[in-house]
Amino acid sequence: MPEPRPGPGLGDVTRGRILFGGDYNPEQWPEETWHDDVRLMKDAGVNSVTVGVFSWARLEPRPGEYDFGWLDRLLGLLHDNGVGVVLATPTASPPPWLGRLYPDTLPVDEDGRIEWWGGRQHFSHSSATYRHHAAAITEALAARYGGHPALTLWHINNEYCTYDYGDEAAARFRGWLRDRYGTLDALNTAWGTAFWSQGYGAWEEILPPRRAHYLKNPTQVLDFRRFTSDMLLECYTAERDIVRRHTPHIPVTTNFMPLWFGQDAWRWAGEEDVVSVDLYPDPRDPYGAQEGALVQDMTRSQARGGPWMVMEQATGSVGWRDVDQPKPRGLNRLWSLQAVARGADAVCYFQWRQSRQGAEKFHSAMVGHAGEHGRAFQEVKQLGADLATLAPRVSGTGIEADVAVLHDWHSWWAGTQEARPFDRADLPVVLRAWHRALWEAHLTTDFAHPEHDLSRYRLVVVPQLYLLTDTAIDNLLAYVRGGGTLVCGFLTGVADEDDRVRPGGMDARLRELFGIRTLHEWWPLPAGETVQCDGFRGTLWSEELEADGTAGETVPYKGGELDGLPAVLGKGRAWYLSTLPEPEALRDLLAGIADGAGVRPVLDGLPAQVEAVRRGDALFLLNHGRDEIAVDVPGTHRDLLTGATVGGSVVLGRYGVAVLTSAASGAS
Amino acid sequence: MPEPRPGPGLGDVTRGRILFGGDYNPEQWPEETWHDDVRLMKDAGVNSVTVGVFSWARLEPRPGEYDFGWLDRLLGLLHDNGVGVVLATPTASPPPWLGRLYPDTLPVDEDGRIEWWGGRQHFSHSSATYRHHAAAITEALAARYGGHPALTLWHINNEYCTYDYGDEAAARFRGWLRDRYGTLDALNTAWGTAFWSQGYGAWEEILPPRRAHYLKNPTQVLDFRRFTSDMLLECYTAERDIVRRHTPHIPVTTNFMPLWFGQDAWRWAGEEDVVSVDLYPDPRDPYGAQEGALVQDMTRSQARGGPWMVMEQATGSVGWRDVDQPKPRGLNRLWSLQAVARGADAVCYFQWRQSRQGAEKFHSAMVGHAGEHGRAFQEVKQLGADLATLAPRVSGTGIEADVAVLHDWHSWWAGTQEARPFDRADLPVVLRAWHRALWEAHLTTDFAHPEHDLSRYRLVVVPQLYLLTDTAIDNLLAYVRGGGTLVCGFLTGVADEDDRVRPGGMDARLRELFGIRTLHEWWPLPAGETVQCDGFRGTLWSEELEADGTAGETVPYKGGELDGLPAVLGKGRAWYLSTLPEPEALRDLLAGIADGAGVRPVLDGLPAQVEAVRRGDALFLLNHGRDEIAVDVPGTHRDLLTGATVGGSVVLGRYGVAVLTSAASGAS
Amino acid sequence: MPEPRPGPGLGDVTRGRILFGGDYNPEQWPEETWHDDVRLMKDAGVNSVTVGVFSWARLEPRPGEYDFGWLDRLLGLLHDNGVGVVLATPTASPPPWLGRLYPDTLPVDEDGRIEWWGGRQHFSHSSATYRHHAAAITEALAARYGGHPALTLWHINNEYCTYDYGDEAAARFRGWLRDRYGTLDALNTAWGTAFWSQGYGAWEEILPPRRAHYLKNPTQVLDFRRFTSDMLLECYTAERDIVRRHTPHIPVTTNFMPLWFGQDAWRWAGEEDVVSVDLYPDPRDPYGAQEGALVQDMTRSQARGGPWMVMEQATGSVGWRDVDQPKPRGLNRLWSLQAVARGADAVCYFQWRQSRQGAEKFHSAMVGHAGEHGRAFQEVKQLGADLATLAPRVSGTGIEADVAVLHDWHSWWAGTQEARPFDRADLPVVLRAWHRALWEAHLTTDFAHPEHDLSRYRLVVVPQLYLLTDTAIDNLLAYVRGGGTLVCGFLTGVADEDDRVRPGGMDARLRELFGIRTLHEWWPLPAGETVQCDGFRGTLWSEELEADGTAGETVPYKGGELDGLPAVLGKGRAWYLSTLPEPEALRDLLAGIADGAGVRPVLDGLPAQVEAVRRGDALFLLNHGRDEIAVDVPGTHRDLLTGATVGGSVVLGRYGVAVLTSAASGAS
Repeated sequence: MPEPRPGPGLGDVTRGRILFGGDYNPEQWPEETWHDDVRLMKDAGVNSVTVGVFSWARLEPRPGEYDFGWLDRLLGLLHDNGVGVVLATPTASPPPWLGRLYPDTLPVDEDGRIEWWGGRQHFSHSSATYRHHAAAITEALAARYGGHPALTLWHINNEYCTYDYGDEAAARFRGWLRDRYGTLDALNTAWGTAFWSQGYGAWEEILPPRRAHYLKNPTQVLDFRRFTSDMLLECYTAERDIVRRHTPHIPVTTNFMPLWFGQDAWRWAGEEDVVSVDLYPDPRDPYGAQEGALVQDMTRSQARGGPWMVMEQATGSVGWRDVDQPKPRGLNRLWSLQAVARGADAVCYFQWRQSRQGAEKFHSAMVGHAGEHGRAFQEVKQLGADLATLAPRVSGTGIEADVAVLHDWHSWWAGTQEARPFDRADLPVVLRAWHRALWEAHLTTDFAHPEHDLSRYRLVVVPQLYLLTDTAIDNLLAYVRGGGTLVCGFLTGVADEDDRVRPGGMDARLRELFGIRTLHEWWPLPAGETVQCDGFRGTLWSEELEADGTAGETVPYKGGELDGLPAVLGKGRAWYLSTLPEPEALRDLLAGIADGAGVRPVLDGLPAQVEAVRRGDALFLLNHGRDEIAVDVPGTHRDLLTGATVGGSVVLGRYGVAVLTSAASGAS
Repeated sequence: MPEPRPGPGLGDVTRGRILFGGDYNPEQWPEETWHDDVRLMKDAGVNSVTVGVFSWARLEPRPGEYDFGWLDRLLGLLHDNGVGVVLATPTASPPPWLGRLYPDTLPVDEDGRIEWWGGRQHFSHSSATYRHHAAAITEALAARYGGHPALTLWHINNEYCTYDYGDEAAARFRGWLRDRYGTLDALNTAWGTAFWSQGYGAWEEILPPRRAHYLKNPTQVLDFRRFTSDMLLECYTAERDIVRRHTPHIPVTTNFMPLWFGQDAWRWAGEEDVVSVDLYPDPRDPYGAQEGALVQDMTRSQARGGPWMVMEQATGSVGWRDVDQPKPRGLNRLWSLQAVARGADAVCYFQWRQSRQGAEKFHSAMVGHAGEHGRAFQEVKQLGADLATLAPRVSGTGIEADVAVLHDWHSWWAGTQEARPFDRADLPVVLRAWHRALWEAHLTTDFAHPEHDLSRYRLVVVPQLYLLTDTAIDNLLAYVRGGGTLVCGFLTGVADEDDRVRPGGMDARLRELFGIRTLHEWWPLPAGETVQCDGFRGTLWSEELEADGTAGETVPYKGGELDGLPAVLGKGRAWYLSTLPEPEALRDLLAGIADGAGVRPVLDGLPAQVEAVRRGDALFLLNHGRDEIAVDVPGTHRDLLTGATVGGSVVLGRYGVAVLTSAASGAS
Repeated sequence: MPEPRPGPGLGDVTRGRILFGGDYNPEQWPEETWHDDVRLMKDAGVNSVTVGVFSWARLEPRPGEYDFGWLDRLLGLLHDNGVGVVLATPTASPPPWLGRLYPDTLPVDEDGRIEWWGGRQHFSHSSATYRHHAAAITEALAARYGGHPALTLWHINNEYCTYDYGDEAAARFRGWLRDRYGTLDALNTAWGTAFWSQGYGAWEEILPPRRAHYLKNPTQVLDFRRFTSDMLLECYTAERDIVRRHTPHIPVTTNFMPLWFGQDAWRWAGEEDVVSVDLYPDPRDPYGAQEGALVQDMTRSQARGGPWMVMEQATGSVGWRDVDQPKPRGLNRLWSLQAVARGADAVCYFQWRQSRQGAEKFHSAMVGHAGEHGRAFQEVKQLGADLATLAPRVSGTGIEADVAVLHDWHSWWAGTQEARPFDRADLPVVLRAWHRALWEAHLTTDFAHPEHDLSRYRLVVVPQLYLLTDTAIDNLLAYVRGGGTLVCGFLTGVADEDDRVRPGGMDARLRELFGIRTLHEWWPLPAGETVQCDGFRGTLWSEELEADGTAGETVPYKGGELDGLPAVLGKGRAWYLSTLPEPEALRDLLAGIADGAGVRPVLDGLPAQVEAVRRGDALFLLNHGRDEIAVDVPGTHRDLLTGATVGGSVVLGRYGVAVLTSAASGAS
């Protein structure tokens, strides 16, 4: 991971506050509405809005002709009313004229189909023409607004997520491959082109993995995913470098989508001053809170443990869900405070005022169709007040975790392909299951890359890292040698950096670490089937393993083809799980190993529905249930939200939150 | 709705008869078979056949070279045997030479894929070349057969249903948009192009809504649907005008498909002399009879209450159903007489004789593969006799309805798009549920457009009209002010003509009409879930509503997040349903409101399985059950079908039908 | 079916042995690994490997430049170690340079999308350029290795299965149609182009059945399937003729996929010296063993009853299954010996050593990722020893069957199309059900084409032959007249060679044969529904039949719409089943009819889980259960596998096999 560039950060934007606001698209409204907006923003405690995300056609209605007047007026109005501005480059949605004049800017999919304008993100990351025009509008924006007092943060593009299989992308792909491999021989070796007669004799023969008659070369697909992430990153850094040149003191971000397949967020985060994410758990999802916690922990870790931004969330419906219910009363506040508990110093929404037109007019907003009397806005006001109350004690503070979950995009990219025997055991499924187990055990958890320095963690868990580089394997071995406790799930260490299966089907060093002599066969489980182990049932996966007798602890399979073979092996501080235990069993197993490693839950005796996180000196207690519940908290505390003093026990109502500090420090 | 053109109508074709026959494609058979056909037609009472629907390649085997000899002989033969001819223009399936010589006549789909010849309907509605050749063959046909004594009706094309996203269609789309909006500013405003940077600076930038990376502009999609319906209508009127020029005394039709998404049938019907429809309820569908009634009521209403044609139905299988069962014994007759009961004066089939070859050789026919001894033909003969018996008393008579169901294609087009929270509550689902409730309450029902004059109805129901123009809203308000009773379902009045959400998420005038202060949130229900209300369960949908206290009647939700909020509001004669009650509850609710509005069922005490309709002075009783059942009918009647006198009660056998008139009038 | 060419056969390769080995792709490994391979091959008794299947890019890295050095060394090494070589032409996967230099070699799909290189089989069967280059590399291989002492068999291409809808294919399709029909009139008649105005006026108008707006012409689709099979066959025969010219003494094969839709395997087999197949039943499929038996019986029949090859099977996982489990302990051996029992003289795998890279690195191998200590290789060694033990008594011997199941690809192609009422009753479903019934009745079964001489069978069954030529119908009638017993399933004899429905919906001669007067209607059954018959339940299908009173045996439907109508008709030795009886009922019905025809099971009193086959003078007993079971075998035998003498009863363990010969002959 690249070192963070010294420079401005989120603290320069928050200055002791928690940012509260959202995307603001006033170009959709008459200017008289802007004044109503400002009135309501002040009413709700909004202190930051993001403008310009999709304004290119408005800012540059014809090639090279700019119209900044409306934006001048808008920034002036916001500044006059104390609302800071996150200014976006509008390059995520080029104006229609770009596509019409320069069809080479349009992306082409795997099947050769053009993606036309009429939606958004109809740009090819590889198009020189697109990059040229994106740079020009960015330059113009930075030149005009770099010195504007309202400007607090740059927001580059939006939710980078596109791909291109066309000819210009093919040419760039070849260039990227030349940089990576140097020679065709090296590429042929890395891709294993001896299989199926795919040996390349000239660079010009290489294509993106376009539609094929049958299975594609997996390393070609993997490299194309790496290339796609890198091309998008080039688009980002090109714009970032322009705004930095104008405003070296203003930090820069781009908003991630949660656990998004297409971007190597570790690498991307290293190019950002501020890490931000769009957070959309489904209110109907019984594991929505856990999903939120996962994204929050991952984003905080990408921000190197420092505060981070919720750039987008929804007060209710989103428009694109099969069953698109709003958040029930209180849930918006609860999930927002959960993000703060896990390190967010900015709670923002898409969007301020709900659009009356366009493809997202059924995406909820801070001010919904129902207007200021709607429940959504009333709850937003309450939340704004809460955030203002919390900010002085919370903003800028950090979170300590003793546990790290390892995650790597390259492993995900390699493992999620055609013709694998582990479709059902795909990385996100397994990752979520493991994080949920830790969450349910009330263990505060970071995420880390497998090549990161892990020495500050007492416990490292690897839900699934199918691909591990030699460096990563060495890192894990060193971590255990250094006294760390490691728990690995199945399908870890199968392949090397080029997606080449390691001899034995699992790296020999790892097998030795866990006490495995031979990995005979994988036994994936069908949907709905489990495998009985001694004391619990396994799901998704099982393995025909032969132990080498060195493991001190073994949990065997019971019955069936695997009867008596090891399901779990524990050799010293290294543990291997060849199946996915059912949720409670995985929770208890990890909690037990954590306990052995000296890792304690945030609070003892917590009810299942209550989440507890310590941020700085504040203890957040979040009730994810709809029923009132009492939580024992030894000692006397002050609840920052209510100002009340709490002794020994705190009662949380439906979706209730308490933020406790020691009573002594309550005087601040 | 345009006023009907004064001119010829269905009565000029029927002349006191009920038309009986079908599509006849003798070009598939040797001419000796034609004589056998005529023999069987006479045997079955066939008095009308449709010829030429797919004869273009036969009529014009090479560009500009016509071969009419076979058709001359055919029309002569039919005329000599007393069978009238509905003559079709063959433009629904151009000959292969047209596509080969003029590839610009081929449609292109959303993804840029050509639709080749080899099936049917491979024509672009926008192609000038196609239109030119279609006009030429139409002209030639009209010139040759306009004076033929067998000719009774023109049938233009067949089941118009195509689309085109290609370049010529794009050019026509721009022209259509110029006509609609005048200026680009107006278009940008209507489409809300400020969202996602879609502002158009030149007409040439506008495209059909082709494949995009993400969600498309919904008003662009809506306008493209309007445009598509209009282009097809232009194709229709161009051919209609040609035949009218030759034969002003011969009426013109084109056959609709039932509740077809692609055509604004209100507008189309205004351009027809005769309204006809293809009627294909599934014999296995437990609601097949209701589906038939819906299509029949809608078609009759499109025909302004006058008689209409069943242009196509099937004696049995259709070839394209997943489980394609034939009609059980008696069902063909029952469903045919149901159409007559609901206003049809023509009962026709696709097709007369089952094809031995081609894509529809498993579509049943009047004479099936089994031939004249097959059950299908034997039942056809019986039906022919019944229709001849009924005709003198029924042909040309009308139906009175006190209830109207509102329907509008533009609302359907706007509401059925990507990224809506109401996928499961799509218009056809809700429309069918409401019509079924009225059907089960034995209430005779028309359909109407929301801008129609509604004053002659005692009860108007709006199952769902997501989009309502200001004119339509004014119309509804005036209707209630004028003493009418209105019942509206959810998702009504959400958007204006441009698919712009109205402030408050529902038109303010409507909210006031129903007593709604604030519409806080929509709560769509997942499949299989219901919401408890006081006295019934709701399905599909629910709403977080705040009443303004003016409604006199309220049925609340019970339990859950909406506990105590209004599910149903009744304010004077205006009712609002924020959920879809389960079938029996909706039936009872609507029956109760109807009763309050002075609307009575056709007959009291009808068993559930018996449908009753009054047409002219005849009372049709239709037993949709397989068990014999007795129906009480006060007074003495004559059954037109049997000639029997019926006193007080009539017994209907399996799928049995009685057509009763007062005994006095039985002498005719 | 063409007569087999006199010439070399499998016996010239086996020479009293059973071939054992697999695809060997040493170009994926360093040459030092080759020596380890040879060591393990000897250890496992491997005597034959297939090389070069996907070596084109390695053999011809640039157009016209060959690199044979590595293959020279490889063949030398194999020969020196007694391993015979099946040498493949590498034409199934052209090198990237071919596609880049000659884009005309790439196939185009139905929607106009190119299939690019990067996978495999990206060649157009119709491309003259492809054929030229394929011939050149074949010529070079044959010239260089025709005289090599290791060479035992030619393997042309691999799993022919491609298609092409592009312009060059269109031109060849026209040529193929000209050859078939001679005149456009004949084509128009055969295709029934009078339907939907599809009449062709020039050959140039004819296209492959590309994407259409609606249903395609079914005879066009049928002919395109015939054409596709024939074009692929032309590719095969062109290469075959080249190698034959060089090595008339070396037999030639290409490997079929089991019951593969795309190839008329009867016709193809006639062009092969050796028939080989790839055999992949799913180890999790409860009917996996029956599926294996079906493919084995079909392949043996394609080999005219003579021995045949398992060219590919898997020791375990395959990579492309949804739930891709390995074979449990013992199953690889059991299913391999089942193939030998049913006539295989070669048991080979894809592949020898599991690839570490590429799209099939999770396809198991003889030497898996786990290496020589893995269970897979240990079981392979055991199997190699068993095959060597059996070979002297088994290799080259034949199997006698009294029962034939008829199958025809043309019928399958015609019957599996859009807009048929029999989607659920598709041929493979019915074929498998009937073969399974015979398998469960322990009746040894051949497959035959409906125009084959059937006189040597006592019983012929036709599960479903929707299309039957007049010749085939005459053949069936003659077979019954000659004393044979015939059992036909529904949907037989519906269409003629051009997919023209025969008058009456079923050929009149067949109706007369079975005693059917009128076939009124088909009643397909929905999934999960059955129809009650007298004594059993029918599935999938039922028919409204009117008998003519000549059938001596009738089983009626009971209840429902078909109450009392015949479900089964038996008229003398001709039987008709208008439904698919549930498995046990079909088994008992066919066993009863077989018994009446003098056909006996292989052994009386066999447990259900035990399969018995007589090959030559050996009786194979195969236990498909995981529990030990005893089988009564009258008399005294020797078990060839163990050498033990068996008296009266033999006990088979989990997946156990015994191969018994009479004790007397045990001395050989």
